[in-house]
Amino acid sequence: MSFPELTRFPENPLIVPERVRPSSPLLRVEGVFNPAALRIDGETVLYCRVAESASPTGPGRSAVPIIGASGGLELLDIDSSKYDLSDPRVLLSSEGRTMYLSSLSHVRQARSRDGRRFEVDDKPCLSGRPGDAEWGVEDPRAVMIEGKRYLSYSAVSRNGVGVAIASGDSGSRFERIGMALPPTNKDAALFPEKVGGLYWMLHRPCPDGIGHPDIWIASSPDLVHWGAHSRLLGGDEGQNWEARKVGAGAPPIRTDAGWLLLYHGVDSHERYSVGVALLDAEDPTKILARSPEPLLEAETDYERRGFFGGAVFPCGAFLEGGDIVMYYGAADRSVCGASIPLAAALERLGR
Amino acid sequence: MSFPELTRFPENPLIVPERVRPSSPLLRVEGVFNPAALRIDGETVLYCRVAESASPTGPGRSAVPIIGASGGLELLDIDSSKYDLSDPRVLLSSEGRTMYLSSLSHVRQARSRDGRRFEVDDKPCLSGRPGDAEWGVEDPRAVMIEGKRYLSYSAVSRNGVGVAIASGDSGSRFERIGMALPPTNKDAALFPEKVGGLYWMLHRPCPDGIGHPDIWIASSPDLVHWGAHSRLLGGDEGQNWEARKVGAGAPPIRTDAGWLLLYHGVDSHERYSVGVALLDAEDPTKILARSPEPLLEAETDYERRGFFGGAVFPCGAFLEGGDIVMYYGAADRSVCGASIPLAAALERLGR
Repeated sequence: MSFPELTRFPENPLIVPERVRPSSPLLRVEGVFNPAALRIDGETVLYCRVAESASPTGPGRSAVPIIGASGGLELLDIDSSKYDLSDPRVLLSSEGRTMYLSSLSHVRQARSRDGRRFEVDDKPCLSGRPGDAEWGVEDPRAVMIEGKRYLSYSAVSRNGVGVAIASGDSGSRFERIGMALPPTNKDAALFPEKVGGLYWMLHRPCPDGIGHPDIWIASSPDLVHWGAHSRLLGGDEGQNWEARKVGAGAPPIRTDAGWLLLYHGVDSHERYSVGVALLDAEDPTKILARSPEPLLEAETDYERRGFFGGAVFPCGAFLEGGDIVMYYGAADRSVCGASIPLAAALERLGR
Repeated sequence: MSFPELTRFPENPLIVPERVRPSSPLLRVEGVFNPAALRIDGETVLYCRVAESASPTGPGRSAVPIIGASGGLELLDIDSSKYDLSDPRVLLSSEGRTMYLSSLSHVRQARSRDGRRFEVDDKPCLSGRPGDAEWGVEDPRAVMIEGKRYLSYSAVSRNGVGVAIASGDSGSRFERIGMALPPTNKDAALFPEKVGGLYWMLHRPCPDGIGHPDIWIASSPDLVHWGAHSRLLGGDEGQNWEARKVGAGAPPIRTDAGWLLLYHGVDSHERYSVGVALLDAEDPTKILARSPEPLLEAETDYERRGFFGGAVFPCGAFLEGGDIVMYYGAADRSVCGASIPLAAALERLGR
């Protein structure tokens, strides 16, 4: 059950794949989802993940789109009978290893005056690149720091999923400033301002062998180099809805009570929900409060059915009036929005 | 087959567990191995991993030593019938997850004038700590930068294995300066000097799902914050002896031909060998050469039998005269040494 004080936008889903122009005539848009969000000069700006796939050359084949060595689109013609296709997102080996992704993602800007009706750019503002992002860029989070826009996102390649950061002046074009964290790491969200003279970032390592996929926190003098890593929040200490794993959602929002964090939690059935926690304003490595109940669960039809059903995945949020306005991906297919009075969310956190 | 030009020290093994005083009367030394090495003022200084275990309270039990919340030694009394004990290093769950380590490691200094006969300190110079190193500290690598000693090492806890860095003035006591990389990451080796105005480090992420355990490289302005991660060297591009995984060994050695790197490679039977590669002097992200054959394979009795047999694991090396002098762990049990003329190693690399 989602918080009763939460209101989904009646216009949901706000952006659907049919409304997004493919980045190439060879590709089809499978999903537009997991949007970063900023409110700038009376305009809501989203940076959406757009996942595209290609038509197979024939039965028993898969066409896997990647960024080729030259930096352009390349389609790999794969014999899909060799792979386990039970998860629509990936081609798995018989040992359960991800050998290919079924889609290639980039980031696309969408803009709106009212936060409900969006105009989607025709072209990507950030794409994959040869080497460490040849399988695409995914799940951006955006902040505005000292007048500049920054995206933290997953850079995906055959060598793993790591965290990269890009910056842009206008918002229609981002340039990568660095690979901030090596694989396996994703769900990175920058804080929108310095705390104690340093930049801060939440991230989510996926440990191999020992450890769980928990939210960690790190700091940086320059947004390029990161250190002082410490574990912040684990799903296994939480409730069933987040027991399998957690990951940062939207960049933390400064409130009088502390940093408000919207994050995602995953249960044993791979259902993704939205949780809420509060971090100390001056020392964000300290958790002040954490709600035992999820703020938002996948309940509507557009949240339960899609490319990957049963997932609500927050990547962007800001305060407007007295409300938290949140944008999230629904079922790896569409962009949705919801809002909740800040006071109600804080009350649920016992503040 | 090891390189024929390589000479094992006839005194091998140089340090064995029986020669090391336990850090507590409750513990027994299982292994002294994987030594970092520096040559300072005519003295060879090793920083050895010392692994200690505790006697079980009775049949069907395991006593697992950890660093407790107060910072002191704590023994967990475990029902071992619940775990898979087929790997002597760990207690595995039925799903193959590492639930506990069978031993707790710290770092111990050993010193020698001739590099063969060592005096081992009575006390650790670096130990685990509550939180992210409660399961100990492992596999140090040492460099001397601007007159200060630095150790990079694995910090192990129930939350994963990450990379930490500590510094010390005297060598008998190190203080942690930061958790440099989150889990899962190990086998980190600092370069002994700045290149292009930055500090550099090799490290070895263990990706989950996508990617392989390859050697990556990163740079830092301050040894605390790290970025610009890129993949350097993968075992799957190599030969059978390193096909399963690779990891940095000793800190790279500056030569006229470039940075000489001794690393470890693991085959499909979990045999650990020592490989050699050459990196560009001015741009260490570039591999100049890589030997198809291992420099050293586990061949002697003390390399083939031990706590974890069939492993030679280099953590320290330096140039002395015209030789590369290398110290390595043998079978997770003892400290050994070997040397090879630099010219012979370079010739094997086609230089």
